[in-house]
Amino acid sequence: MMALTREGIARFAPGTALYIKPMYWAEGDGVGTVAGDPETTRFCLCLFESPIAPKDATIAVTLSPYRRPSLEYAPVNAKTGSLYPNNARALVEAKGRGFDNAVFLDMMGNVAELATANIFMTKDGVVRTPYANGSFLNGITRQRIISLLRSAGTAVEECTLSYSDFLDADEIFSTGNYHKVVSIGRIEERQKQPGPVAAKARALYWDFAHA
Amino acid sequence: MMALTREGIARFAPGTALYIKPMYWAEGDGVGTVAGDPETTRFCLCLFESPIAPKDATIAVTLSPYRRPSLEYAPVNAKTGSLYPNNARALVEAKGRGFDNAVFLDMMGNVAELATANIFMTKDGVVRTPYANGSFLNGITRQRIISLLRSAGTAVEECTLSYSDFLDADEIFSTGNYHKVVSIGRIEERQKQPGPVAAKARALYWDFAHA
Repeated sequence: MMALTREGIARFAPGTALYIKPMYWAEGDGVGTVAGDPETTRFCLCLFESPIAPKDATIAVTLSPYRRPSLEYAPVNAKTGSLYPNNARALVEAKGRGFDNAVFLDMMGNVAELATANIFMTKDGVVRTPYANGSFLNGITRQRIISLLRSAGTAVEECTLSYSDFLDADEIFSTGNYHKVVSIGRIEERQKQPGPVAAKARALYWDFAHA
Repeated sequence: MMALTREGIARFAPGTALYIKPMYWAEGDGVGTVAGDPETTRFCLCLFESPIAPKDATIAVTLSPYRRPSLEYAPVNAKTGSLYPNNARALVEAKGRGFDNAVFLDMMGNVAELATANIFMTKDGVVRTPYANGSFLNGITRQRIISLLRSAGTAVEECTLSYSDFLDADEIFSTGNYHKVVSIGRIEERQKQPGPVAAKARALYWDFAHA
């Protein structure tokens, strides 16, 4: 995989921002449905240009009518393409109402994540993000940002958060592999100023990535 | 689609039992997720040999630890491949315990369907099948069998059914496009005799299909 990735990267101009997406799937196991099957598993590596959002980018988010399932209803313990149509319809619905992304609740009615990224908030100087309860991907960037902020002396709580917690937040931002850290400038009709914690998180991530 | 299907069928020996599976998907709409997009929608028609289960075939079923989601959690209003991994893992789990198929409950805890087909039961001469509440595919074969049985004078109730209703049933059978009607000979450790209603439903279907 590493050799293929280097071969692919070499085909782009130096310095191009790329997204690297390895995928695999099984083809055997007969008609109807296909279970995981090592003997017939195939691999695809996809590299494409994907500029990272600039430092001053902000997005607008809204509550999705769709929700994240639990493990009983979908394989949420895997990063599988079969979960994406739920996210895609949430994005389409949110964009149709003038927003950039959608906030998913989990089956308990607590905030889970955005349709394409994890979500953080700050209130009175405390940084909080939904507890990784298995309903959503505990993203590598989410874990990295938590770790970097804590190492830099900023307390981060992983806890149960309601949508009203986010509506009332001082600052909201997302973390994800595509854009690392992005400030959320509007939630429903409420404006939020891009704040110091998102800026700090982004700076810490850049220092980490270039170290 | 019809012309392509006829072209495909002609490549098999006359009389071969085939399954015909048309599929489509969108490829546009940028990175991350792909929403439905008519301009970039592609089409694939797959035909493959799929012998129908013989008249005296029976299968064994068990309660799945997995469940069918509602529309809030997955696009259950479409026959989409993204729903199949949930079914696939249910089949793998059931087969690992010596069964052929798995009974899904819906989010309310009522019986929904099998992992690959709809499900019917009879008790004291009454035929019942789960009410089509949107959680599972209201299969064409399901609707056809209900209609054929009713036309032949057999009452069929679509209603809310618990798993214990199926455990206590006189007769259980499945309906689906792959095998039309199949008797369920065992549920958990309880043996069920293939019964007269399944035989009647199957005969009615064959008469319909060959008319």
